[in-house]
Amino acid sequence: MKKSLALKILENHLLKGEIKTGNEVCIKIDQTLTQDSTGTMAYLQLEAMDIEDVKTEKSIAYIDHNILQAGFENADDHEFIKSAANKYGITFSKAGCGICHQVQLEQFGKPGKTLLGSDSHTPTGGALAQIAIGAGGLDVAVAMARGFYFIKVPKIYRINLKNELKDSVNAKDLILYILGKLSVKGGTGFIMEYTGEGVKSLSVTDRATICNMGAELGATTSIFPSDENTLKYLKSQNREKDYVMLSADDDAIYDESMEIDLRDIKPAVAKPHFPDQYEIVENLPKIKLDQVAIGSCTNSSYKDMMKVASILDGKKVHPDISLVISPGSATILEKLSENGALSKMIKAGARILESGCGPCIGMGQAPKSKGVSLRSFNRNFKGRSGTMDAEIYLASPETCAVSAIKGYIADPSNFSYEKNFDENIIFNHTKAYFIEREEDLSKRYKKTVKGPNIKPFPKAKPISNIDKKIIYKAGDGITTDDICPSNAKLLPFRSNIEYLSNFAFSTKISDFKKRAIENDGGVIVAGENYGQGSSREHAALIPLYLGVKAVLAKSFARIHRSNLINNAILPLEFVDFNDYEKLGEFDNIKISNVEYSIESGNFIIENIDKNISINLKGVFSDREKEILREGGYLNYAKNLELE
Amino acid sequence: MKKSLALKILENHLLKGEIKTGNEVCIKIDQTLTQDSTGTMAYLQLEAMDIEDVKTEKSIAYIDHNILQAGFENADDHEFIKSAANKYGITFSKAGCGICHQVQLEQFGKPGKTLLGSDSHTPTGGALAQIAIGAGGLDVAVAMARGFYFIKVPKIYRINLKNELKDSVNAKDLILYILGKLSVKGGTGFIMEYTGEGVKSLSVTDRATICNMGAELGATTSIFPSDENTLKYLKSQNREKDYVMLSADDDAIYDESMEIDLRDIKPAVAKPHFPDQYEIVENLPKIKLDQVAIGSCTNSSYKDMMKVASILDGKKVHPDISLVISPGSATILEKLSENGALSKMIKAGARILESGCGPCIGMGQAPKSKGVSLRSFNRNFKGRSGTMDAEIYLASPETCAVSAIKGYIADPSNFSYEKNFDENIIFNHTKAYFIEREEDLSKRYKKTVKGPNIKPFPKAKPISNIDKKIIYKAGDGITTDDICPSNAKLLPFRSNIEYLSNFAFSTKISDFKKRAIENDGGVIVAGENYGQGSSREHAALIPLYLGVKAVLAKSFARIHRSNLINNAILPLEFVDFNDYEKLGEFDNIKISNVEYSIESGNFIIENIDKNISINLKGVFSDREKEILREGGYLNYAKNLELE
Repeated sequence: MKKSLALKILENHLLKGEIKTGNEVCIKIDQTLTQDSTGTMAYLQLEAMDIEDVKTEKSIAYIDHNILQAGFENADDHEFIKSAANKYGITFSKAGCGICHQVQLEQFGKPGKTLLGSDSHTPTGGALAQIAIGAGGLDVAVAMARGFYFIKVPKIYRINLKNELKDSVNAKDLILYILGKLSVKGGTGFIMEYTGEGVKSLSVTDRATICNMGAELGATTSIFPSDENTLKYLKSQNREKDYVMLSADDDAIYDESMEIDLRDIKPAVAKPHFPDQYEIVENLPKIKLDQVAIGSCTNSSYKDMMKVASILDGKKVHPDISLVISPGSATILEKLSENGALSKMIKAGARILESGCGPCIGMGQAPKSKGVSLRSFNRNFKGRSGTMDAEIYLASPETCAVSAIKGYIADPSNFSYEKNFDENIIFNHTKAYFIEREEDLSKRYKKTVKGPNIKPFPKAKPISNIDKKIIYKAGDGITTDDICPSNAKLLPFRSNIEYLSNFAFSTKISDFKKRAIENDGGVIVAGENYGQGSSREHAALIPLYLGVKAVLAKSFARIHRSNLINNAILPLEFVDFNDYEKLGEFDNIKISNVEYSIESGNFIIENIDKNISINLKGVFSDREKEILREGGYLNYAKNLELE
Repeated sequence: MKKSLALKILENHLLKGEIKTGNEVCIKIDQTLTQDSTGTMAYLQLEAMDIEDVKTEKSIAYIDHNILQAGFENADDHEFIKSAANKYGITFSKAGCGICHQVQLEQFGKPGKTLLGSDSHTPTGGALAQIAIGAGGLDVAVAMARGFYFIKVPKIYRINLKNELKDSVNAKDLILYILGKLSVKGGTGFIMEYTGEGVKSLSVTDRATICNMGAELGATTSIFPSDENTLKYLKSQNREKDYVMLSADDDAIYDESMEIDLRDIKPAVAKPHFPDQYEIVENLPKIKLDQVAIGSCTNSSYKDMMKVASILDGKKVHPDISLVISPGSATILEKLSENGALSKMIKAGARILESGCGPCIGMGQAPKSKGVSLRSFNRNFKGRSGTMDAEIYLASPETCAVSAIKGYIADPSNFSYEKNFDENIIFNHTKAYFIEREEDLSKRYKKTVKGPNIKPFPKAKPISNIDKKIIYKAGDGITTDDICPSNAKLLPFRSNIEYLSNFAFSTKISDFKKRAIENDGGVIVAGENYGQGSSREHAALIPLYLGVKAVLAKSFARIHRSNLINNAILPLEFVDFNDYEKLGEFDNIKISNVEYSIESGNFIIENIDKNISINLKGVFSDREKEILREGGYLNYAKNLELE
């Protein structure tokens, strides 16, 4: 007893190791998901593992990211993923079906199951009391091929909720509040577990918003109990049979905890350029807007959309504002269409985009130069919108919709609209967007289909001693969007590491590739929370391709650290943060005895130019050590036998 | 009497000259339209004319092309156009409102009026018995600034229609048939005027499809009478007051004529890569498809969409096909939403795109490599889809929808669906997408707003003797898509001629710009119908920017010829087509006595390398001569006084 819900589910899925904080354990993965921008790489890696069928209960390949299709590259990627899905027995979700996390919640998520997804917002599934984790493509490929995933048992952070959110306050405002309190690295090493009577007042899609943006805390995942609300939600999706009641033990012990009175939460924004730059709307000056964007895996549920429609009903979008709305799934779009909500949006002058990730990932709708945009999304990193000098604010759909009418960031509390929508109506999902593998063996793909832009991925090499230049010294908070920029121009090239490498760190410096080539690879130095943000493995594959041997940082984001290890790039941490100052850009450094250091966890870096030595640590699990020595996770996992 | 409808309307608008075939006359322009991909240039030119208010009855600036917004450039263009619209008294139609030609038809087109638009499909308005002409941006800028347009009085081609189209046959099949008969240059120098009892069986939107694709014939415009169907349509748009009955005199005389029995028309396609590659569907082998796209200014009317929904009702899009649907206007999307048609599309697995030009202009939805795509659009030029090696077929929405289900190009005649939809229901247009200029003078823009990608346009210079190299020798049928490629990657740069010039003729050769720079400009040689397709003036501005002095071709498309003259580039035609062979790529040529030749119309080209002379003709109106001498239309029109 005394167990948190998270640890209970992990225990139920334990294949190897002992559930104890900090221990690396191997757990069974029941479900996987991929999306198209990370999926091509994941399926190339799956292919390299040479299997017959996936080992999971349900694996789904979604197409939701690169659906603008400005050139042949996107459609080729979709075709490749479709062929891989067919070959290995994965359900293929065609473009137009909706955003992976929203569709997964509606049609596939099951309480008590584990889900591994090649997208950092996979934790959305925690709303259905799943352990839903975002990981690099290779981890997901291994989970599909072998059915397992290795994880360091996280600490559990209890967020105990009291009372109810006020009218006009969205679950988004709550998670923005938590981000403001804890910061974008505050959840690192934790699973955020929500408890308390306040939980009852949050619907499954409210919970999904919260779990979704738990990723922004750096948390491994977030989880809610499975209760009557879960049952109602599953009923509404015609999936009552998937319900099981699940919760933490009453006397569960947590590593950290925080209590929040939901009545205290107010409409808020995250200011540019990080999701933890919290401010309540009533404290803001009058910030004029050029664009408002509503949708994304964070806030595109039926209830969110209905509130938006109610706010827009009979009103008119401000002339200076372009309001774009992307419903989360085809099912939601259909319902909005049927019940008149879509009409209200159109009559107000909104632009209706295809169901998909859209502007949230910079796939279109870049604001004008120096434009100010308010978005119901999850990330506001500089440049992610496609416009480097744009200012992006994050807020709830209600705040977005009211602001779209007013022309500036406005508090929905002062606006009259219908606030209570029953989201537990019956949704009838069409199956037309899904392609299941043919029963008929003769009709199955024997080979995957690869267009000319789909290039082989770079192969890792066993780790060795390092004698290189520091080719880039970065500051704090480098995101995977910095390492591998994500925008409409580059997203089509996610299966072409060589091409992408031209743009490495281009949000920060213009010549990273040149530096790497001129110095035959090198080492990166960075500050805190290196590699936060998207799960994209490309942020490790590009450095691998360019010969980067190690990253020396104050701290790492979880998924990216794994991605580095999976590709045999050393992630080392400063023991004394002051030592960061002792390493200069273009200094020559040496790390000797790497084999030995991997065992001990202690690394000594000689700075040849400054003639000093500093200590770094790299504490690796036995498995990680083996991966580094074998030269990457792919070889390791292919041959691994769980005794 | 004995007058065609077209000549009657021209006569009603005559400002200068005599209505006689071949004469250049000046006519009053009542309405103009621009879209955003040609509009930025048109408004830069309007700005250079330094006016207070536009002189037209109604001028509208639509945003429908560049609405993907992959970078800041598009939104900056929209903002610039919005500011110019405000400054000069033009109605601004925000993104999301719909495709310019569809919205114009629904909300602004009036029988008997003249419409000039900076888009080659402006003739769509002929469905409402307008003289609706596509022209270069500069011509439209002059029409806005001065209220007039110069036109060589076209010949009139009568197309006399008998009986009715069969079920399952769309107006699209009729215009494809006409294109098959007359070819993409068959309408050059003509207005296509539709007459006969068959006209009565065609609704206004059927007529719009036909007039729209009349542009593909090379015709100046196409026109239908204004009759009971026109009245019904205008009533359905709440514009009964705009109705006047208009038709040709019974005994009208035409320059050419053709009779078509509508019962003979069958479902057809245009095969790759030109709209005149006609074939009836029943003669086709089983052509497997990867993509089907429905929409565009040609076929996105309410009735077309309703038929598509009826075909998809209860069916499922073939697993191998991506079906994308872009409704023509927000009003249509709203109706489809209200009446359940949109639900049917979604249930079948269709992708619903924003109302706009979308894939028709290569703005997204590029097929996969070597993909085969069937589209309800108007052009299938090689590469226009965004995928150079894709095969694009054009067909009716019915053929498209049935084929999307079957997986191959299929005849809708063999398919059961609801064929008769009353399109004369009442449409309630929201005004939320339109921005009218503020009444309050103090609130008006004093200056236009220009983002960093909006560059000055190149200025033409007075014509002079030529001593240059032939830097490119092209074949027949060069389109403006060849001269200035149109795809999602380049469309954002329509206000940056310098950048676009890097891609001149890149569908044909890779080094046009290099050739131009190395030779300090030069001359282009081409075959027949040079400059067909889109009206984009960029196809003249890029050569101007690169120092091209003359184009020597077997024949020119009308709009492009004007664009060349407007920018003081000589369009000269071979007297003897065999002489085309006597000019080799990189030959040095001389044209002396240009001033004199412009007067006489006879030009002698010396080929220095081959030591031969050949004759070309350049028959210019007095106005055109003056433009060439003064160095472009801008200066000419600015100071022109109509006595």
